[in-house]
Amino acid sequence: MIKQVAIVGGTHGNEFTGIYLLKKWQQQPVLIQRESFNTETLFANPLAYEQNRRYVDNDLNRRFSEAELAAPQLSSHEERRAKEINQLLGPKGDPRCDFLIDLHTTTSNMGPTLLLTANGPFYNQLAAYAKQQMPDVVIVCDEDHKSNQEHHLLSTICEKNVIVEVGPAQQSVLRQDVFELSERLTGIVLDFIHLYNTDQLPELTGKIEAYRYLESLTLPLNEKGDRLGMVHANVQDRDFQPIHPGDPIFRTFDGKDICYQGDKVVYPSFINEAAYYDNNLAMSLSEKVELECL
Amino acid sequence: MIKQVAIVGGTHGNEFTGIYLLKKWQQQPVLIQRESFNTETLFANPLAYEQNRRYVDNDLNRRFSEAELAAPQLSSHEERRAKEINQLLGPKGDPRCDFLIDLHTTTSNMGPTLLLTANGPFYNQLAAYAKQQMPDVVIVCDEDHKSNQEHHLLSTICEKNVIVEVGPAQQSVLRQDVFELSERLTGIVLDFIHLYNTDQLPELTGKIEAYRYLESLTLPLNEKGDRLGMVHANVQDRDFQPIHPGDPIFRTFDGKDICYQGDKVVYPSFINEAAYYDNNLAMSLSEKVELECL
Repeated sequence: MIKQVAIVGGTHGNEFTGIYLLKKWQQQPVLIQRESFNTETLFANPLAYEQNRRYVDNDLNRRFSEAELAAPQLSSHEERRAKEINQLLGPKGDPRCDFLIDLHTTTSNMGPTLLLTANGPFYNQLAAYAKQQMPDVVIVCDEDHKSNQEHHLLSTICEKNVIVEVGPAQQSVLRQDVFELSERLTGIVLDFIHLYNTDQLPELTGKIEAYRYLESLTLPLNEKGDRLGMVHANVQDRDFQPIHPGDPIFRTFDGKDICYQGDKVVYPSFINEAAYYDNNLAMSLSEKVELECL
Repeated sequence: MIKQVAIVGGTHGNEFTGIYLLKKWQQQPVLIQRESFNTETLFANPLAYEQNRRYVDNDLNRRFSEAELAAPQLSSHEERRAKEINQLLGPKGDPRCDFLIDLHTTTSNMGPTLLLTANGPFYNQLAAYAKQQMPDVVIVCDEDHKSNQEHHLLSTICEKNVIVEVGPAQQSVLRQDVFELSERLTGIVLDFIHLYNTDQLPELTGKIEAYRYLESLTLPLNEKGDRLGMVHANVQDRDFQPIHPGDPIFRTFDGKDICYQGDKVVYPSFINEAAYYDNNLAMSLSEKVELECL
């Protein structure tokens, strides 16, 4: 039984959609209440928002492994804030909240996406219900090889959690379409929790298409680390469209194509995401998988 | 006769396209040379680029009115840098360079755009030639009521100048399409100068469609200055598409439409431009005009 749900926005200070949705819901709490549980909201990184930046010192959404939460260092703003948030909503391992929804946007053309940090029948049902209510939603699995304890994402404070990730949204800008998709997708997750609590879920059998994260691709660089090219126009804005072995994926500044060297079809996401560009990450690659609801 | 052309990039430190085009041209100068003149390049604000920001203290591209260039204050990085650049390429009023091309990108969906800071037959010919070579190019006039001396844009160091403005490009990210359009449009301007110098311009008579800046629209705000809504989905990404009196232009966070109150058709640009969002500027409005080549 899920009794307490936390919705978190502004984990990244320049992703305005979640921050403005929290403002809206704080004025109209009825929008996020459901009969069978209580919902609270948390603005995760107001200082980064004030500074109109993703983070002040380092990425808040990488600070939530149990090891880092237990470590004594408090040298960065986000290390301090992670421990505060863990006290407010958690602590991880034995959290006060039973479910956490973390609201994010991406500059990539990913549409409405649910990122799952764990697997199992509960998540497969959540994915299936979301697909039934919003057929365009994309399900991304980022759970491999990591226990909840090792996972460093904020949402993993709660064993049950989901990340609502919608794009394309410019950093520090609101778009009506992204705002409304984020609001609707969050509502679908809340509805699911209520139906799950009250044993009223509709029939959700069958297979659900999803994408499982494999690796990240780096921009072409020379030996000094200078960029030599860009994401290819054939790939740009085509998140979750297949890349076949040999397809062009980068274009060098002097006009040459660089092709994908892998030996199987992969599916890109976070293509040219602005927040990853300073690390020269060009895109994430996933494989297509099926989640099965029994 | 135009003998010396300056191409400036990185006036805004987070508009990467111009900065990377300069790197390319510094390695292959032949690409920007033409027989009848000499071309030089200038990276306007490297410090802002290092900090991955539009500017360090204030907007470099608002520091070039003659009054400000003559004023003794040097309190900001950009005030100092403006005076340096004015010495390097100008000085304004009697500049060493005869023509200046300033490379910009916008997060708005403006496509390839030439911004003209002055009017007259030379500019009408430039506009007509660019349209002939690249029919999708949009011509924007921002010269009203300002003499070259009063104009505060960097490009106005030279009486003859143009701004190459291409979008949509995320801040601090390269896109192949924007990179290539910017490169091609710059090449067209260089070709024009050479044809103008050598009296070889093709027949360019007739009327050219252009947009003349009228005013900027502010996001809906309450009395405390908090945002109440967003650019309407009907307007988002539709730069240069007509807005009629009564058309919805904003959507409030609680789902109400706010409609355009003007009494004539206007054409938006810089819709939801990220760099203007902190000032709550939602878009620029222009009227459609015709430039005539005789």
